[in-house]
Amino acid sequence: MKVAILLYDGMTALDAIGPYDVFATTLKCEVQFVAKKKGLIKLDSNMGYLHADYSFSEVVSADILLVPGCIPPNYKTPMKDEDTLNWIRQIHETTKWTTSVCNGSLILSAAGLLHGVTATTHWGSFGVLQSLGTTPTHERVVRQGKMITAAGVSSGIDMALQLVAWEFGEDASKGVQLILEYDPQPPFDSGSPKKAPAALVEQIGGMIQELAKQEPRN
Amino acid sequence: MKVAILLYDGMTALDAIGPYDVFATTLKCEVQFVAKKKGLIKLDSNMGYLHADYSFSEVVSADILLVPGCIPPNYKTPMKDEDTLNWIRQIHETTKWTTSVCNGSLILSAAGLLHGVTATTHWGSFGVLQSLGTTPTHERVVRQGKMITAAGVSSGIDMALQLVAWEFGEDASKGVQLILEYDPQPPFDSGSPKKAPAALVEQIGGMIQELAKQEPRN
Repeated sequence: MKVAILLYDGMTALDAIGPYDVFATTLKCEVQFVAKKKGLIKLDSNMGYLHADYSFSEVVSADILLVPGCIPPNYKTPMKDEDTLNWIRQIHETTKWTTSVCNGSLILSAAGLLHGVTATTHWGSFGVLQSLGTTPTHERVVRQGKMITAAGVSSGIDMALQLVAWEFGEDASKGVQLILEYDPQPPFDSGSPKKAPAALVEQIGGMIQELAKQEPRN
Repeated sequence: MKVAILLYDGMTALDAIGPYDVFATTLKCEVQFVAKKKGLIKLDSNMGYLHADYSFSEVVSADILLVPGCIPPNYKTPMKDEDTLNWIRQIHETTKWTTSVCNGSLILSAAGLLHGVTATTHWGSFGVLQSLGTTPTHERVVRQGKMITAAGVSSGIDMALQLVAWEFGEDASKGVQLILEYDPQPPFDSGSPKKAPAALVEQIGGMIQELAKQEPRN
């Protein structure tokens, strides 16, 4: 299967690299990192790069399209870029699965692919998703027809394992999980707004709201 | 804190990018991607690149050093490269924490930093680690003085969250976990050899043994 992963300046690396390593480990997927212009892609931390090996014009179809997220307000730039939105729509016409991680779903929504349906995004971006006509939900991986949206950042690993199970069978997915030794043991149980201390949720939620009001610099 | 992440051709991206995004999200770490030569670093899938922004000569100290792993037998190249081993030893002299993910611990062991101690690696590389004079253990994150080794690939996320808790406090670590929405929900419980189906463990373990016998191409 051909997996096209969209890259853009200001994105979050783990949103892309988690699913990439799941798909790559199957040995049954050709993964392509694609951007408007090929070359180095600046990360949202301003401390490193990914690399787009393909430009939009070089990738005209994919079995799986994946749109990663970013620190707010960086999604605003791809959401307003017609070349990006048109490429997403064009690839979507050819996909078996069109997917997003984190607030990458805002970009899918801006491309008109999530209108009127239920989907997810980073918990801090529920308001923005709703304002675009998409109903947010706290599920970690949401399937609506061929659209799959995953929650914040690390959820892309879970989504990709689910897709591998659907496409290549449960044993293939279990095998990838075993190779990646994905037996999570975080030191705390603070990975969702329902589980984290309320004061932290309020503080970080407020920070995200403030960032979302800014103009993008990417 | 300054975090230096070693990159080398043939490495596994998630080993580096999981911890990178944990450290970057603290907003209290300067993360540097470092390699023998700066520029593009080919991934073990042969389907993409990371980017080294610094060469060895440009990074002479770090608070945290992280050595990622790879598909066997790619670790053999850095394990035999004196420039790489010398750089690791030099940085280790300056660190508060010297760490590895997956079979990156084989490289630390080759640098002489794990001799006679207990450490971990990918479950499929226990034999190689033992042959280097390091005692393997199935714990996910192992601390021995300032040496921290983590198990396969995805375990680097757990290790980095633990380090963030030690350095910046539990609330900082919980906050990063919440921002990365690290509330793991893999579709199966197959992430360790103790939990995966025995036939899969045998098959993948055998594959890893065979790969480990080969000559590296990176």
